[in-house]
Amino acid sequence: MAQTGQKLANGSARIDFSTDPSRYRHWKLRVDGNVATLVLDVDEKGGLFAGYDLKLNSYDLGVDIELADAFERIRFEHPEVRVVLLRSGKPRVFCAGANIRMLAGASHAHKVNFCKFTNETRNAIEDASAGSGVRTVCVINGTAAGGGYELALAADHIILVDDGSSSVSLPEVSLLAVLPGTGGLTRITDKRKVRRDRADFFCTTEEGIKGKRAVEWRLVDEVAPSSRLEDVIAARSREFAGDAEHPPPYPPPLAGEGREGAGVALTPLERKVSLDRREYKYVSVAFDRAARVAAITLRGPETPPPASSEEMVRQSAAFWPLRLARELDDAILDIRLNELDMAAIVFKSEGEPQTVLDYDIFLDRQAGHWLAREIRLKWKRVLKRIDLTSRSLVALIEPGSCFAGTLAEIVFAADRSYMLIGNPDGDNRPPAVIMLGDANLSGTLAMSNGLDRLRTRFLGEPEAHDKARRAIDQSLDARAAEALGLVTFALDDIDWADEIRLFLEERASFSPDSLTGLEANLRFGGPETMETKIFARLTAWQNWIFQRPNATGEAGALSRYGTGRKPEFDTRRT
Amino acid sequence: MAQTGQKLANGSARIDFSTDPSRYRHWKLRVDGNVATLVLDVDEKGGLFAGYDLKLNSYDLGVDIELADAFERIRFEHPEVRVVLLRSGKPRVFCAGANIRMLAGASHAHKVNFCKFTNETRNAIEDASAGSGVRTVCVINGTAAGGGYELALAADHIILVDDGSSSVSLPEVSLLAVLPGTGGLTRITDKRKVRRDRADFFCTTEEGIKGKRAVEWRLVDEVAPSSRLEDVIAARSREFAGDAEHPPPYPPPLAGEGREGAGVALTPLERKVSLDRREYKYVSVAFDRAARVAAITLRGPETPPPASSEEMVRQSAAFWPLRLARELDDAILDIRLNELDMAAIVFKSEGEPQTVLDYDIFLDRQAGHWLAREIRLKWKRVLKRIDLTSRSLVALIEPGSCFAGTLAEIVFAADRSYMLIGNPDGDNRPPAVIMLGDANLSGTLAMSNGLDRLRTRFLGEPEAHDKARRAIDQSLDARAAEALGLVTFALDDIDWADEIRLFLEERASFSPDSLTGLEANLRFGGPETMETKIFARLTAWQNWIFQRPNATGEAGALSRYGTGRKPEFDTRRT
Repeated sequence: MAQTGQKLANGSARIDFSTDPSRYRHWKLRVDGNVATLVLDVDEKGGLFAGYDLKLNSYDLGVDIELADAFERIRFEHPEVRVVLLRSGKPRVFCAGANIRMLAGASHAHKVNFCKFTNETRNAIEDASAGSGVRTVCVINGTAAGGGYELALAADHIILVDDGSSSVSLPEVSLLAVLPGTGGLTRITDKRKVRRDRADFFCTTEEGIKGKRAVEWRLVDEVAPSSRLEDVIAARSREFAGDAEHPPPYPPPLAGEGREGAGVALTPLERKVSLDRREYKYVSVAFDRAARVAAITLRGPETPPPASSEEMVRQSAAFWPLRLARELDDAILDIRLNELDMAAIVFKSEGEPQTVLDYDIFLDRQAGHWLAREIRLKWKRVLKRIDLTSRSLVALIEPGSCFAGTLAEIVFAADRSYMLIGNPDGDNRPPAVIMLGDANLSGTLAMSNGLDRLRTRFLGEPEAHDKARRAIDQSLDARAAEALGLVTFALDDIDWADEIRLFLEERASFSPDSLTGLEANLRFGGPETMETKIFARLTAWQNWIFQRPNATGEAGALSRYGTGRKPEFDTRRT
Repeated sequence: MAQTGQKLANGSARIDFSTDPSRYRHWKLRVDGNVATLVLDVDEKGGLFAGYDLKLNSYDLGVDIELADAFERIRFEHPEVRVVLLRSGKPRVFCAGANIRMLAGASHAHKVNFCKFTNETRNAIEDASAGSGVRTVCVINGTAAGGGYELALAADHIILVDDGSSSVSLPEVSLLAVLPGTGGLTRITDKRKVRRDRADFFCTTEEGIKGKRAVEWRLVDEVAPSSRLEDVIAARSREFAGDAEHPPPYPPPLAGEGREGAGVALTPLERKVSLDRREYKYVSVAFDRAARVAAITLRGPETPPPASSEEMVRQSAAFWPLRLARELDDAILDIRLNELDMAAIVFKSEGEPQTVLDYDIFLDRQAGHWLAREIRLKWKRVLKRIDLTSRSLVALIEPGSCFAGTLAEIVFAADRSYMLIGNPDGDNRPPAVIMLGDANLSGTLAMSNGLDRLRTRFLGEPEAHDKARRAIDQSLDARAAEALGLVTFALDDIDWADEIRLFLEERASFSPDSLTGLEANLRFGGPETMETKIFARLTAWQNWIFQRPNATGEAGALSRYGTGRKPEFDTRRT
């Protein structure tokens, strides 16, 4: 993180997104039958960077990396879990939100990427509910302020203790001159559908709202007196876990497939990290620092898909689609947070396209199996993470590549794609092809706007979408892929190297900020959803505010918070 | 404009939004039967501010004020017009977009408000098409760059001359490190539905695209050789004006109601402007500069509605709903651009609520009449302008007020509303009531998200919407309005003055930027449309970029444009 001027507290040069419960410093994960409990008990001295204490269960990126990991593990390692209880391990405080001194000291790029990751984590909590029927119940015993309440908003059900002091609040505007930018404003209006004038009152009331009014205004789902709290939690757990009257939306795993401990252990990723390379088993990342380009190569499977779901479970974390998804996710996050200077990510692939498609077909056939479902949902999240990555995304489809089915989504996620026609002299790898599968057209891997990438791509030409459907399972060479509108340009070997070099040079010469804005607009044609509103309407405004002297200037509210000095505002409205 | 540090070229202290064709410096409006021609022929020396020349048909706010006025006049003064031709009066250039030296010299607040107004003007062009069946055909003979092409994108049909040099382009990213922020990116993806990778190519290609490729990529609708241009224009005009085969979506005005010259003249607004007041016939604005509050008082009609549509036409611009809408629009724009220091706008009203509702009922009954339709559409635009105004909006509903029907929309547009219970001692005006009418629930005055304000307000409680419907035509006192969820707070006389004073003081103490972001989120719960995407996703990103040193810093691209010095970029991605 030398680039952002802040030093990691552990002395490392890079933020590491991999962790496991044995290394958590801030969360405790306990699984008891079909109920998991996640207790937030932040280690004040465990901040990711030096220079601040994580008081009052406030969080930084390090705390959120553990939360994201915990939800991944619940879904893969404990598929029997139907309910997650989010609780605080501290008295009188649920969570004070993002640590303010951390925010005040962070670079703009870190603030923005921190918020993006925390947003993705909260979306993943909702994805566990919508996709896997894992209901999250948040228990607020004490104060849930700012990001603390925003975390609660990601849950399916919020229980607020009715003790005269426990409260929910969004004091960002009044205290810090910034927004509740981790989805707070959008979930207030679009998920909990709080009346807008009440939302206005709530979001400008530093002390927040408690008790019955919080229920009446739909800020929480119920209140419970301290004396009855554990009974209420138990009742809700039973209800959300499902019984005859309230069956869970997804059946629990079959006997032998989802008993406690029968999930799939998310073993540590094997990575070799050097200055200019990251090497995983199925992913390689190479940094060209002069060109400011990160090249990610994805490798296809070495063997055909397993013959049965049992065999898939046996392969566990080594199962190709799961391992690749985890490695790719880690590589993307690494670039996002640790390699700010990379202008573009170039995606390449190596492997046998038909085998990649065979894995997709296997997952389709096993769609009723919890592990197949979780792997698909994981890919959906990873692909969304790519859509939301603020680097120019380029796919190069070359001889020997395997952009088929799920991997072809990366081509459609890219801002541009280039495909080589035929083979260069002396290259005897199979010529470049793209293969489409059901995964590209079924909604399984939909973007956060709710549409498949191909559907978004062909908003203006539905007939092109139909043609793509008819091309399923075919090996589409460069000319065919271009004719179907699947790639931007099909190029001869004569033009290939120069075209791509010139394009990448030009891209690197543009202002990174204007590209961030451009790509955030062009990637999301068509409908907006609560999720896209969070990343567009809400986040773009927050990023603007993060640049405004009233918040982050020397006399701004974020900078002066806790100093005893009042902020000074330029009073002109924009 | 002393507040923004830039001097108006005409020596005035305020930007004036009222104009008429006799005063246009940049546009020529010609009406010939049912076709109007608007020729852009910018007076280089006619810039609104000193310090730049409007070369190559580039524009500033002054040019756009005339364009907005021209479309208003076409709709009200020439209701027979079915087609508007947008053309350039200069050789080899259609329009070079927003003037860059103007942008480089403008304050952040002016840039943002300039873009907001130009966006509203382009939306109004589309509203004329959707609401009134007035089709706009844009003829590009020369280059249409940046904002020039964005203007074309607002048209229903774009004709590009195929002469080997005429082209469309969005060079903002490559030349200026900003976005095509006047709707360009959103209209590319959501209106013209250009494939996203082609859009990426187009938006990073300084020289733009011409000829057949522009048609193939859906950037324009057709190309025409210079030799055939006038024939093609004539053919399209006939087609869009409607014939037996292509009837216009709205029937032309009846004989006697819409002959040329039979429209309603938009006579100059009568205004008295003093330092702290603006006085119109039905609108008063009072500025409390210490409190940073602008109070707008709206006055109801003095007489009952006319007995017939003929009488409405005879009253013409003096007809109360039309006159009030024009005055209110002018007052809002004045505050937006000239009174940046106002933190809040407080709306009050005076009049007879039943009479206000009677005018609504009159307009409902005359819904098939072109003038009634245009007045409703005008109110829709004015109310949207209020929704998009970046000031805290407060409605005070007091004895003697007339927030009924269309005027009640202002209560629902407000961030908060306060209603007085009963009367203060000695006040013998009628106690405060709200009255609902069909206009509040029929979609006629929908927000830019496509929903009525009450529908947006009650997203979470559809039953409240039904209750509101049942309360139509009733005089709802403070307790009843509060029970129906129509106002935020109903207050006794004892609390009234203090509560409101404290609220306004608190509001003025917050960071203006965080309030802008807060309100832009809370006002737009629910669905997004192309229009809201322009004001949220696109504009919020553009505003962010307008704050970034890569664009507007000393070495930024916008600042250095035309100086011969290359911009210097911080290469870190955010």
